[in-house]
Amino acid sequence: MTATAEPSHTAPDTQIYERRESIVRSYSRAIPRQFNRARGVWMHDSNGGKYLDFLSGCSTLNYGHNHPVLKQALLDYIAGDGITHGLDLHTDAKADFLTALEDVVLRPRGLDYRAMFTGPTGTNAVEAAIKLARKVTGREMVIAFTNGFHGMTLGALACTGNAGKRSGAGVPLSHVAHEPYDGYYGPDVDTAALLEQRLADPSSGLDAPAAILVETVQGEGGLNAASPEWLRRVAKIAKAHGALLIVDDIQAGCGRTGGFFSFEGMGFTPDIVTLAKSLSGMGLPFALTLFRPELDIWSPGEHNGTFRGNNHAFVTATAALRHFWSGREFAADITRRGRLLERRLDRIAAEHGLATRGRGMMRGINVGSGEIASAITGACFEQGLIIETSGPHDEIVKVLAPLVIDDAVLGAGLDILERSVRAALTPALGVAA
Amino acid sequence: MTATAEPSHTAPDTQIYERRESIVRSYSRAIPRQFNRARGVWMHDSNGGKYLDFLSGCSTLNYGHNHPVLKQALLDYIAGDGITHGLDLHTDAKADFLTALEDVVLRPRGLDYRAMFTGPTGTNAVEAAIKLARKVTGREMVIAFTNGFHGMTLGALACTGNAGKRSGAGVPLSHVAHEPYDGYYGPDVDTAALLEQRLADPSSGLDAPAAILVETVQGEGGLNAASPEWLRRVAKIAKAHGALLIVDDIQAGCGRTGGFFSFEGMGFTPDIVTLAKSLSGMGLPFALTLFRPELDIWSPGEHNGTFRGNNHAFVTATAALRHFWSGREFAADITRRGRLLERRLDRIAAEHGLATRGRGMMRGINVGSGEIASAITGACFEQGLIIETSGPHDEIVKVLAPLVIDDAVLGAGLDILERSVRAALTPALGVAA
Amino acid sequence: MTATAEPSHTAPDTQIYERRESIVRSYSRAIPRQFNRARGVWMHDSNGGKYLDFLSGCSTLNYGHNHPVLKQALLDYIAGDGITHGLDLHTDAKADFLTALEDVVLRPRGLDYRAMFTGPTGTNAVEAAIKLARKVTGREMVIAFTNGFHGMTLGALACTGNAGKRSGAGVPLSHVAHEPYDGYYGPDVDTAALLEQRLADPSSGLDAPAAILVETVQGEGGLNAASPEWLRRVAKIAKAHGALLIVDDIQAGCGRTGGFFSFEGMGFTPDIVTLAKSLSGMGLPFALTLFRPELDIWSPGEHNGTFRGNNHAFVTATAALRHFWSGREFAADITRRGRLLERRLDRIAAEHGLATRGRGMMRGINVGSGEIASAITGACFEQGLIIETSGPHDEIVKVLAPLVIDDAVLGAGLDILERSVRAALTPALGVAA
Amino acid sequence: MTATAEPSHTAPDTQIYERRESIVRSYSRAIPRQFNRARGVWMHDSNGGKYLDFLSGCSTLNYGHNHPVLKQALLDYIAGDGITHGLDLHTDAKADFLTALEDVVLRPRGLDYRAMFTGPTGTNAVEAAIKLARKVTGREMVIAFTNGFHGMTLGALACTGNAGKRSGAGVPLSHVAHEPYDGYYGPDVDTAALLEQRLADPSSGLDAPAAILVETVQGEGGLNAASPEWLRRVAKIAKAHGALLIVDDIQAGCGRTGGFFSFEGMGFTPDIVTLAKSLSGMGLPFALTLFRPELDIWSPGEHNGTFRGNNHAFVTATAALRHFWSGREFAADITRRGRLLERRLDRIAAEHGLATRGRGMMRGINVGSGEIASAITGACFEQGLIIETSGPHDEIVKVLAPLVIDDAVLGAGLDILERSVRAALTPALGVAA
Repeated sequence: MTATAEPSHTAPDTQIYERRESIVRSYSRAIPRQFNRARGVWMHDSNGGKYLDFLSGCSTLNYGHNHPVLKQALLDYIAGDGITHGLDLHTDAKADFLTALEDVVLRPRGLDYRAMFTGPTGTNAVEAAIKLARKVTGREMVIAFTNGFHGMTLGALACTGNAGKRSGAGVPLSHVAHEPYDGYYGPDVDTAALLEQRLADPSSGLDAPAAILVETVQGEGGLNAASPEWLRRVAKIAKAHGALLIVDDIQAGCGRTGGFFSFEGMGFTPDIVTLAKSLSGMGLPFALTLFRPELDIWSPGEHNGTFRGNNHAFVTATAALRHFWSGREFAADITRRGRLLERRLDRIAAEHGLATRGRGMMRGINVGSGEIASAITGACFEQGLIIETSGPHDEIVKVLAPLVIDDAVLGAGLDILERSVRAALTPALGVAA
Repeated sequence: MTATAEPSHTAPDTQIYERRESIVRSYSRAIPRQFNRARGVWMHDSNGGKYLDFLSGCSTLNYGHNHPVLKQALLDYIAGDGITHGLDLHTDAKADFLTALEDVVLRPRGLDYRAMFTGPTGTNAVEAAIKLARKVTGREMVIAFTNGFHGMTLGALACTGNAGKRSGAGVPLSHVAHEPYDGYYGPDVDTAALLEQRLADPSSGLDAPAAILVETVQGEGGLNAASPEWLRRVAKIAKAHGALLIVDDIQAGCGRTGGFFSFEGMGFTPDIVTLAKSLSGMGLPFALTLFRPELDIWSPGEHNGTFRGNNHAFVTATAALRHFWSGREFAADITRRGRLLERRLDRIAAEHGLATRGRGMMRGINVGSGEIASAITGACFEQGLIIETSGPHDEIVKVLAPLVIDDAVLGAGLDILERSVRAALTPALGVAA
Repeated sequence: MTATAEPSHTAPDTQIYERRESIVRSYSRAIPRQFNRARGVWMHDSNGGKYLDFLSGCSTLNYGHNHPVLKQALLDYIAGDGITHGLDLHTDAKADFLTALEDVVLRPRGLDYRAMFTGPTGTNAVEAAIKLARKVTGREMVIAFTNGFHGMTLGALACTGNAGKRSGAGVPLSHVAHEPYDGYYGPDVDTAALLEQRLADPSSGLDAPAAILVETVQGEGGLNAASPEWLRRVAKIAKAHGALLIVDDIQAGCGRTGGFFSFEGMGFTPDIVTLAKSLSGMGLPFALTLFRPELDIWSPGEHNGTFRGNNHAFVTATAALRHFWSGREFAADITRRGRLLERRLDRIAAEHGLATRGRGMMRGINVGSGEIASAITGACFEQGLIIETSGPHDEIVKVLAPLVIDDAVLGAGLDILERSVRAALTPALGVAA
Repeated sequence: MTATAEPSHTAPDTQIYERRESIVRSYSRAIPRQFNRARGVWMHDSNGGKYLDFLSGCSTLNYGHNHPVLKQALLDYIAGDGITHGLDLHTDAKADFLTALEDVVLRPRGLDYRAMFTGPTGTNAVEAAIKLARKVTGREMVIAFTNGFHGMTLGALACTGNAGKRSGAGVPLSHVAHEPYDGYYGPDVDTAALLEQRLADPSSGLDAPAAILVETVQGEGGLNAASPEWLRRVAKIAKAHGALLIVDDIQAGCGRTGGFFSFEGMGFTPDIVTLAKSLSGMGLPFALTLFRPELDIWSPGEHNGTFRGNNHAFVTATAALRHFWSGREFAADITRRGRLLERRLDRIAAEHGLATRGRGMMRGINVGSGEIASAITGACFEQGLIIETSGPHDEIVKVLAPLVIDDAVLGAGLDILERSVRAALTPALGVAA
């Protein structure tokens, strides 16, 4: 296996999808290949093509595909008839995970959280978080932010900003107010001050909130990264107004921005944190809602779900925590590589007068329109690089490479991106805006 | 390994759970063991105990724990670095699953459905179903039924009848009306006629519905089984009033009542069907929303989710479909074994003047109160039988044995149940009502 | 002025209405005249026509048009520069009204209510009532009934059953469940028992209610009269489940069914009562919400409204209370006249195999369809009788004559009705069904 | 009758209120007198006291109390047995009003509106307006503004900003987003630009609005006056985004700011206008919703209400329109007197370093806190001046004198205010901040 992409150029037979899969499918439209195996940063299609993965399951594969340590742990567990499904019964796998979570994640960071195993999807973790905040405070309204993305089930969808997603609800989305995120009105408008003013004003029409729900970096919303100052102030505002602070760390957590949590070292502690995506380490469905023990006022089974204890995910998550997070090297390496990524993206952007966005290994370039972004990602794909867009108009080309990527391979992928941006934005070469 | 239960009698060390797991956990309270492996109908705890499983992950383990055929398919797939996580990209595993679904499930039953891979939880499949119904009809209101259970996220929770679950929402649950299920007002009140009257009356206060959402057997609601006549009439009422009929087959589907779908042979075809629980066959998170192709009006990604393509589940589900459902033997065997179960339960119930409920391999006894039911299941557990309750007051002792259970083992488990019912209901022996 | 109707047959010039009045207008369509004066039971149009009024402003003119006692009181008040508008300031007129309410209405009936002057419309009184019930109980859900009518503003409209009215809301109407009224499912189904069962069942999907909102006779819903037994049971159910009982007496109160309140002598006391329509006695806008003093937990101005103290209405209402309700004669006379009405309507109905509905002076005939009813009321109008319909399909011809009508004039009006029914229902004479 | 206030200093007997009136009453707390008659700008209490009225029923008495022209018209109408109540039947009084509205208001201003007679309260007019906007656009969400006040029924209350009012709802207030009003974030933040940005952004979480509902001057919200530029831009934004512009002119209309409508001469035309308060001219309950004829898509009776045709109000309103608005003198006089008021208030405010607010004859002083404001209005009352506060903290002392007030009397009232402000704000003299 060489370290270069070798894309195939033949679209797969898609009849079975056309006959039997809903047209709601999306990624397979821009990436018309059928994949059969993957390892590390590489994905292989059924026609022998090989692709470098800068999408990483939207940050679900931070440790790459089928990491050997995780894979072996899972193979051993399955071979030994380990419990696969046990509702929320105690299992060895769950105890091991909780112990690893405590040892490797919570205790070293001085965090005292309890873990709630919700249904194994991010949206379920968010639903549980806002339910709990409403239950604890006796209030209904949740403050979410412009461009926030929190999931597709009705409670989480109400917190999501995207109109295309919202319109699928079929009912009005209620009990949530969307306030401007950091920088939303440009660098001169202090949106934390706006929020504070509205909450302090008994006549603003903004009801007292149960929670403020925030992503530190808005992955789907366009890689907007809030400043630590802004986040600290939002944390203070929440506290001052009797609201719980929920950090949705589903995309930005699990190392994507450097630390295990995206809010580490920022001088505030969320009341509730949601995790999913890379939590299992191997891409298995898994989600967690963490909260301060004093908030743990659930009745037994008050929020439940058939798959709320995905034991396979416990196994791989435990392996991932212990393998990657026992020391500080991994975080340091992500931070270092994130700077490298930043420099390259800044250079690519500067060449075309564009701006970059994001933090850590979660960065992108605002290329101005979804059309241009699509031309760029299409050109990348032709060269064997899988990369996607985000943002309100899909105008941000987004690099979400596995965190474990080798610097050279990262560089090779960015070379492809650089060429593709140039092709798209140089009038003589490519598409016009 | 012998075929008898050998329970251990030592509770596990639960400190890690007390420190780190939310008190929302439920099953581990009545079943205070830590399990480490399981195969077929047997679960093993970390103290060497062995338990017969009549809970089956609430019908998630219809083929038993870690069925060797499914397990081997999964081991091979993982060993070969098969795609674990690919968002909704095309994969060999997905194509195989869709093909098996078409070959084994849809075509033989003359059903023309498209499959939507929602987030891999039942509640997500229900959310997608009601979203789609609202989108297609342009209406907001969904009719669900008394004692219905459809999930914990806000949209599905609004359709769920249970007050304890509903109260967790923290906001009023809207856009759903709960109508009386078959038999709800006793055998003399025709609830389909009541529903028809209300929908036909422009002044009833019941808005025109987007969908009627129904379980053919209400698993969590107390094993109430609707008659085929009632279901056919509800299907007609839905059609007559421009509403889509959604059968939530998450618990009753995948063979639990005999056929792959619980509504087979009843003379009507749902517009939308939700599946989850036993769909993967091995207990892996997996959910599907099936619907008529004409309803497939989604925009790309309008409902999405990180784990909407759980490839491990595709692999085991494909193996399960091909292994169990290629011929008619399995369904026939379930039906036969269901009758056996019915006879035994009827006998146990008759001894105490009680009534049984349910259909196929989804049956229980109404013991009159949650207190008695809890005494019975507790006594069963002491003898190595894991069995649970359902119903509005948890008053139904519910047998959800794996469908693949050997007749003799089923009989042995029912012997334990018989003794436990007798102990609980014979004044000299056990608890008083 | 003779005591017979002398209708004119010329439609007025309606250009100004067509140019400047919204097409939302309704009564002027079936009654195309322009009226200029009215006294007692007679209305006069601008072409000299004279009409007997069996509509009475939908029970707003129980004492007839411009009753001389009320009219004189109002003329004196205005002439003396009495306060016309004073927000909710204390005025002589208000003190007089409260004193009369206490003396004439509350004390003789052993009722201890406080009066809240809401905005002077029935819908506002209902909004205040359900707000208060929600505030007192901390619950959101209100139980209303099939065919109930409670107003057009969003809170009251959600309690209204009529689909045509509901569809005007433009948003889903939430936080209300409509349960079947007395007799809704026919004489053999005990709907109070159904309600009790649903509320007692923790899995019925019906949330614990803040209030049960009921009309003792459903005026707009088709003159359905609940039995005292049913109402008593509903009152008990409300109490048992921690809900407040609200009687909406806006149409049935102020003597329409005999007593001042429609629930008098039935053996239960509502927690909250709403009044409007005939409360001012002369047709002036006026509404009241009455409730037990212990429920009076409002903050000052928490529910307010510019016209919440309509002093002109205080003056006429005081005069009406003292004139009509100081003794028992008026109630006795209404009851007597109501029986007379009942006998005549029964006879008319019997001739055609039809059924009557209602109670006291609030009765009608179900003629089977809105088309027939419209033919009948049209024929009446041609003969100088103003009469209207109600019911889900407008199929009930409704007699709402002023309570003060002379027996002979009532008889003359019913003669017109009798002829019109006969004409409409005798195939050779009129319209076919 | 002299032209000076002669307050009485004896509180009335309030036992009847304490026994029988809900504690929701508000104005009678700060103004503990019982009034019996009023004329022009003067109110008289039952102890012989005489008060100058700078409250004017919150702008309901723009022409003063019991204006002789209006009073005589009403006396004549009642004496002649004019129709008092006729639902929405055609009457001479209604035709006269519509004709006057057309002649005096609409045609001279080049406005082509249809009038909808809603229930005679401002909140009802607002409910009708937002219903219509939702019906016309097929959208649910309405944009209202911080500090907006639109009424107390559920639909209008959702549009109201005040937390104390909102908390009375008892259910979450949905389908409305409150955006910052002109100047809300200080002079440097262009809130129209913020609104435009959020609506143009498909990921802002702000759903496409049915309407933008705005007051040109926020009476209850603290006399914030929007600039014509801002209002024009909001009108453009509404149009650009397919939303209807509703101007709630209930408090600011009917001459309060100079023109009959508060938006005259500003270069935009609202799609819908609501009127109430001073519309009848004499303080009688009356409300109107005006809209462009193309929006008139109501079904007959789709929004109705028992008192939707208050004929007494038609009579006085017609007299008021013809008497005051036939020429341009009245508007000119208001404008002139408004400037006079402005100069005096500016001088009073400047003395204490305070700022004034408002427009036309709708102005006030921000005295910094509700406590100070209450001290000031209390001191005024002691001297025979009735004056009230508004604003989020009741910190604005608000002058709402009748528009017909004599300059000298206005001056005398302002003298009282000046002394009271001085007393309250001069440390040696009165209360400290």
